[in-house]
Amino acid sequence: MNNFKFKNETSIRFGKDRLETELYDAVSQFGNRVLLTFGGGSIKKSGLYDRVINLLSGLEVFELSDIEPNPKINSVRQGQKLVKEHDIDVILAVGGGSVIDASKVIASSKFYDKDPWELVKDSSKRFGINQLPIVDILTLSATGTEMNAGSVISNPETNQKLGTMGPNTPAVSFLDPQLTYSVSKWQTAAGSIDIFSHLTEQYFDTGASDVTLGMIEGLYRAVIKNTPSVLADPNNYDARAALMWSSTMALNGLVSVGTQNGWTVHPIEHELSAYYDITHGIGLGILTPRWMKHILSAETVPRFAQFGRHVWHLTGTDEVVANQAIQATFDWVKSLNVPTTLPGVEINDTTHFQKMAESAVLVGDLNHSAYVPLEVADVVSLFEQSMTNSGFVD
Amino acid sequence: MNNFKFKNETSIRFGKDRLETELYDAVSQFGNRVLLTFGGGSIKKSGLYDRVINLLSGLEVFELSDIEPNPKINSVRQGQKLVKEHDIDVILAVGGGSVIDASKVIASSKFYDKDPWELVKDSSKRFGINQLPIVDILTLSATGTEMNAGSVISNPETNQKLGTMGPNTPAVSFLDPQLTYSVSKWQTAAGSIDIFSHLTEQYFDTGASDVTLGMIEGLYRAVIKNTPSVLADPNNYDARAALMWSSTMALNGLVSVGTQNGWTVHPIEHELSAYYDITHGIGLGILTPRWMKHILSAETVPRFAQFGRHVWHLTGTDEVVANQAIQATFDWVKSLNVPTTLPGVEINDTTHFQKMAESAVLVGDLNHSAYVPLEVADVVSLFEQSMTNSGFVD
Repeated sequence: MNNFKFKNETSIRFGKDRLETELYDAVSQFGNRVLLTFGGGSIKKSGLYDRVINLLSGLEVFELSDIEPNPKINSVRQGQKLVKEHDIDVILAVGGGSVIDASKVIASSKFYDKDPWELVKDSSKRFGINQLPIVDILTLSATGTEMNAGSVISNPETNQKLGTMGPNTPAVSFLDPQLTYSVSKWQTAAGSIDIFSHLTEQYFDTGASDVTLGMIEGLYRAVIKNTPSVLADPNNYDARAALMWSSTMALNGLVSVGTQNGWTVHPIEHELSAYYDITHGIGLGILTPRWMKHILSAETVPRFAQFGRHVWHLTGTDEVVANQAIQATFDWVKSLNVPTTLPGVEINDTTHFQKMAESAVLVGDLNHSAYVPLEVADVVSLFEQSMTNSGFVD
Repeated sequence: MNNFKFKNETSIRFGKDRLETELYDAVSQFGNRVLLTFGGGSIKKSGLYDRVINLLSGLEVFELSDIEPNPKINSVRQGQKLVKEHDIDVILAVGGGSVIDASKVIASSKFYDKDPWELVKDSSKRFGINQLPIVDILTLSATGTEMNAGSVISNPETNQKLGTMGPNTPAVSFLDPQLTYSVSKWQTAAGSIDIFSHLTEQYFDTGASDVTLGMIEGLYRAVIKNTPSVLADPNNYDARAALMWSSTMALNGLVSVGTQNGWTVHPIEHELSAYYDITHGIGLGILTPRWMKHILSAETVPRFAQFGRHVWHLTGTDEVVANQAIQATFDWVKSLNVPTTLPGVEINDTTHFQKMAESAVLVGDLNHSAYVPLEVADVVSLFEQSMTNSGFVD
């Protein structure tokens, strides 16, 4: 097992109806001047916006709305202006990964005088400066951002979608599974595939240990089992709760301790989202089974066999189990009623594949740090294989 | 899933040879006046004592030694005297669970003027007062105390062994698997059984969720697999590392989120240790398979079947798998070359069973809060069943 440091100070408040008794104190402990960040109108429609505004009564609340999926640097720029202008003490982010991700960079940008895209391009700049505390109310189970220090920000001007890390995780995260009841089937499926992919990026790693592998296998099973339950009954509390807590556990740093490879499928998908603005999780669901097939080899077959036995309960030789596990992954994605090819998300144009692949390899350092190193031609091939379902029992 | 709060601020420093670069800063960040706590002579024999003293050069170091296994309230009383007399800033605990457990209560006792046994009897008294920060260097994989706020303290005058909680987990925990190379086979086995039991106390809980069950199953497998590897080769780094990190993960609060039952086997074992001063983990290994058999019923068989399938890879009907899983637990304990009966640890005298059972039920609230409630007669029966291996394939 590799050496590692671990510390995570986020205070998790999981479960039903905690906002009424805990939100005010959680926010006001950091000051009176609050920037409330959120996305489109969904929290207004659901009544959550009014509920939060009521609970913050007595504090000075400023607002940044319209943070989009695949959050854009322009939202961060607007946020930077607001936190400086109003000398904000604390950010309350209400939404999914996009709102919280953008808020984390805004939290740093208060203490930075240049364009915050510089902070995204070079995370080290964020470690030298202060960061506003963030309280969040999560409304989507997917990214795990509620208990980590990462963000992913897009810049449409440069067609870039980059990951950035800050020094701090959110101070307090409210996780009420009821707030995800209204999440559409499409977004629920995409969120679950995102969780599945986070687990995959950490499971297929040469530094993973018996301890982290075992925990990841348990999280895989929880996601695989509970996603169909939620799609069948969106108000199934326990299934929503299992997805919500799995999303957090999948990416709070605990199951990645000791890992040593960079992520593979995420940087490749980020090219799809950056070029075509498709839903991140859907892109991951298309790419993942192809990537698995592509890297299956004599060297990797034992890990895939363990994945098949412990996650999918398959039996047989390593090779049989490995191949069945990849097909099972494809089948699971398909069972969630989401597209399994690029044309399914209206990407029919193959002309950007070369440029996207070059960028993915560069940004993700895929030819050096990936579990199985990939060259540009490998990534182009993955995009091409994603044009049809050939190779899978469909 | 039940509502829960989770926050754990311990900074984990896991792996080889970190002390030289990190120990001084980790300790001195809290002040200059250090109480070094440890057990018998083993850290002197191994050279760890000299190494630590060297690294603390420049700080004022006071010492409390001879903290025994099943740490006694008298050690805490001595510690209380020292932290007050020398106005200690930080405790550096070097050892296993006993040393760290005692240190946590000493950390509270600086801010308490009466006998610290009062703090053990009533944890709520510790939440109203301050607590010194603790840095620890763990030398035994077992209790998980390195990342939680609990302690177990014995009082030989009253034959009591009680759990107590404080407000804070250790500030910094150094976990170097190499420091466990010298742990005897007996203590290694006992430590692993202790981890197994912690997992069991949280797995067999009516509030456990798919997420926590899945993570626990992974931790079970890591412990089951790596303990024999360590017994065969005490210097197997990866196996020692897997046990060390499993011990921490098993009891840092993460796999217990949402649980709602009290623990069962621990309070029963505490009576054995309190009366006969036997090794805690060995007592747990004797009691656990009997307890499993005792509570197996139509109601509990599904959980035991999941335990059998996901942990022991058994197949068949629920009932068959459940029974085989209990036998597998017995077999695993026996395979570690430790006694599997009370006479094996020289407890031949049955006269205290009634009194011990009464105390266990009272202290553990077993007749109300246990996963399957136990009355005094049930506990007496568990002790009696532990006199022989009848009922198990031996």
